[in-house]
Amino acid sequence: MTSYVNSPSTPAPAPTSPAESGQVAQRATDASPVWAALPPRERARALVAAADALEANRAELVAVAMSETGLSEARLTGELTRTAVQLRLFADTIVDGTYLDVRIDDADPHFALGVRPDLRRYRMPVGPVLNFAASNFPFAFSVAGGDTAAALAAGNPVIVKAHSGHPMLSERTGAIVAAALEVAGAPVGTLQLIYGQAAGVDLLKDPRIAAASFTGSIRAGRILADIAAARPAPIPFYGELGSVNPAFVTRAALSERADTIADGYVASVSGSAGQLCTKPGFLFLPVGHGLADALAGRADTVAEHRLLNPGIAAGYRARRASILAAPGVTPIAEGSLRFDNEGQGWATPTIVSVRVDDLIAQRDALLDEAFGPLSIVVEYESEDELAAHAEDLFEGNLTGTVHAGAGEASLSLRALIRWIAEHAGRVLFGGWPTGVAVTPAMQHGGPWPATTNDTSTSVGSAAIDRFLRPVAYQDMPQALLPEPLRDENPWDVPQQRGLEGESLTWGHI
Amino acid sequence: MTSYVNSPSTPAPAPTSPAESGQVAQRATDASPVWAALPPRERARALVAAADALEANRAELVAVAMSETGLSEARLTGELTRTAVQLRLFADTIVDGTYLDVRIDDADPHFALGVRPDLRRYRMPVGPVLNFAASNFPFAFSVAGGDTAAALAAGNPVIVKAHSGHPMLSERTGAIVAAALEVAGAPVGTLQLIYGQAAGVDLLKDPRIAAASFTGSIRAGRILADIAAARPAPIPFYGELGSVNPAFVTRAALSERADTIADGYVASVSGSAGQLCTKPGFLFLPVGHGLADALAGRADTVAEHRLLNPGIAAGYRARRASILAAPGVTPIAEGSLRFDNEGQGWATPTIVSVRVDDLIAQRDALLDEAFGPLSIVVEYESEDELAAHAEDLFEGNLTGTVHAGAGEASLSLRALIRWIAEHAGRVLFGGWPTGVAVTPAMQHGGPWPATTNDTSTSVGSAAIDRFLRPVAYQDMPQALLPEPLRDENPWDVPQQRGLEGESLTWGHI
Repeated sequence: MTSYVNSPSTPAPAPTSPAESGQVAQRATDASPVWAALPPRERARALVAAADALEANRAELVAVAMSETGLSEARLTGELTRTAVQLRLFADTIVDGTYLDVRIDDADPHFALGVRPDLRRYRMPVGPVLNFAASNFPFAFSVAGGDTAAALAAGNPVIVKAHSGHPMLSERTGAIVAAALEVAGAPVGTLQLIYGQAAGVDLLKDPRIAAASFTGSIRAGRILADIAAARPAPIPFYGELGSVNPAFVTRAALSERADTIADGYVASVSGSAGQLCTKPGFLFLPVGHGLADALAGRADTVAEHRLLNPGIAAGYRARRASILAAPGVTPIAEGSLRFDNEGQGWATPTIVSVRVDDLIAQRDALLDEAFGPLSIVVEYESEDELAAHAEDLFEGNLTGTVHAGAGEASLSLRALIRWIAEHAGRVLFGGWPTGVAVTPAMQHGGPWPATTNDTSTSVGSAAIDRFLRPVAYQDMPQALLPEPLRDENPWDVPQQRGLEGESLTWGHI
Repeated sequence: MTSYVNSPSTPAPAPTSPAESGQVAQRATDASPVWAALPPRERARALVAAADALEANRAELVAVAMSETGLSEARLTGELTRTAVQLRLFADTIVDGTYLDVRIDDADPHFALGVRPDLRRYRMPVGPVLNFAASNFPFAFSVAGGDTAAALAAGNPVIVKAHSGHPMLSERTGAIVAAALEVAGAPVGTLQLIYGQAAGVDLLKDPRIAAASFTGSIRAGRILADIAAARPAPIPFYGELGSVNPAFVTRAALSERADTIADGYVASVSGSAGQLCTKPGFLFLPVGHGLADALAGRADTVAEHRLLNPGIAAGYRARRASILAAPGVTPIAEGSLRFDNEGQGWATPTIVSVRVDDLIAQRDALLDEAFGPLSIVVEYESEDELAAHAEDLFEGNLTGTVHAGAGEASLSLRALIRWIAEHAGRVLFGGWPTGVAVTPAMQHGGPWPATTNDTSTSVGSAAIDRFLRPVAYQDMPQALLPEPLRDENPWDVPQQRGLEGESLTWGHI
């Protein structure tokens, strides 16, 4: 949330004024019923057009993103592809129609508990959505990113509060995607941008906004979540905040594949300079693991990487210094951090080691997320204690990972997996949590403080759920029903008819 | 939330002390993994056992409920049946398994955007649930009511904060149902009760509580929702608060079936002395409707009915007096309200009339819910204005109703139906909103202030959704997966395999 702009010669978009914000909200409100009423195939075509437009402008957009974020061309190219894929994924999702959760209960005039009406339920769009973009995914969690795609697909206009770390990219992406949507039939106001914290807060309080999403820090996310909850009419707020993603390696795993583990861990910690919400912040290894040299050697081969912006670099410098200064902490790979003439920070990975008892003693200094290429190896005595240590040390997380031996299925391993499932959104067996697949079965979200609302995901097709609201129609004539609830089913969506042959179970009063 | 107890000679359960509340929370925490791990058929058997126990003790429970609430034997007998039916409904729901939303995406090592892992997602129980019982449904929204049944079915222990309006019934119901659950294999602590506002607030703040539900007033619900949102780790809070359930009658409907409308309206307003969250609080009739005598005549035949408790009666007296005193309000049936020696209020229906312009002018006096047998007829000039009037006057509601003529499908009618769908959880065409069917397609919930969270329902089998949280497993060996995610599918639940033949659409980064 710094106000940094990369190239001082290019003026950043001005902060959106209160009057402009009001106009933005009104355009979204006006667009809402029109966009919501488009048949799913037409909305899907507009999403695909947006994806195509992103890819058609790849060279320009990736160049602007490189300049503003310091991320690599390969990473940004992949991220743009992912962003286009997400839009197409949601196009498929809405054409399929399962997400509408259509339920039809036929009337029963002879029901034991009284006349039962014809009831038909589906999920409709909530209305205009406000999406606060992230610093660290300038495409995939920003203007045309996951929450935008999910909200648009559900039938909601979207207002994106651009992140101050990549304003020019946001403006260009917004212009390209909004134009593509409009050419494909979306009403004016289906996708709009605003700039500046004040405008974001203003709109979060605006009664025309029906739901909001956010990806960023715990501090900022909590402030916004509290604002959403304190409105005269509270709205759902889906914030993805902080996660340290602990990974646990058993002795058997280590003896089977120490090198593979060292490779994967250092790659996962250092990719995108560690500025990923799923970076493994803690790696539990058995005492005497003998992996320090292997980790140091790999960390030393990682090229210096620019951090996203000076604000993030300053935060990383402070976190790194306090971790290195904490009693009991030993550097495995001390890494480096330097600042260039433009105030940008450049880092190589820092990996430190601590005994689990020292981590417990130094929890205030060590447990918070370090956003950047730093991770802490935790040396434990006994696998039997891992679940208890995890319970003692960690709050909610996006992910938790176990590396076990082939066929290993001890009670302590099972207890650890159970602990992860109860405290995280995704449980990995082997592998590393960075690299979040965009699929129907992905869950990207977890108990506080990983997210403000762990009943939902921000990655994968299930993300559409967060921008929908159920409504039931009772005894409505066919001609007045929404298309998905009609017997003729013009949109060809799955319709669950739930009461056949089971009516003795059902009642009303 | 008064502290009234019906029979002064029978001591009410004492308020739960902070120490006792802590023990209750710990028992629920200890029960949580055990109850959650029971195979669905075993949990279902326990729910059916609870339903059977309620019915086996019907005579005693209905008698206690009559004494404590003043509701009729017929109503309470029906409500107990409904409560048992709800428990059986959720037993069916968990055996069916669709609610788990199991999604399996097979691994794809050759995927265009990189190796894609095996991902499997389902919804697991959230953990101990706190349920604040309602005054007006001593069975169906209380100790063993809908939220309790849904939370138990999902695999969560439940702590019910008993309502002060029916403490003895709560205690007996809790004892009977908890014993039935335990005999059927549920761990101790699966269903527990607490008494007193302070204990409810203490537990709402307790970090061991994972979600909460509530049925009651806007004032109390907002206080509790704010507490839930302000916790160090916020939790979902599902409050069902206030609703005035407007109903709109077109001129064509009136000319077709004035008598039927008069019958149904008066019955819906006066049933259970109007103490239902779906009571139609406003009936829009065209100017010159000529229905006043018919409504008055029917209202005069309704027998005096006791209100639930002196606190509710006092609230009703105040609301009724201010409505009757508002400029422009004309009584159609003035009704009565008297208090007996024990402080109980007894009422007959009060139906008043107001022109829509006067309602707009007197909105502060007239628009709030009147909890009791009172309803306001609103005379309108033109059907074309109904949607605009509704938009101007009303916030969110549980329901909205239209009565139209056969085949009527005017633009103004369509606009009105659209307005209702956007501002309520259930849209009725004909009929009356009281009498909420318990089926898969029911939606009982709507935009603020009808509920604190309109993405959810508190009636019908979809209510189980609110007590679940998604979790994904990545590359987990079969033996370490939860049963619903295994290929062998030992619980025989629906498994969606979403990626077959579509993999070009999917990506990861």
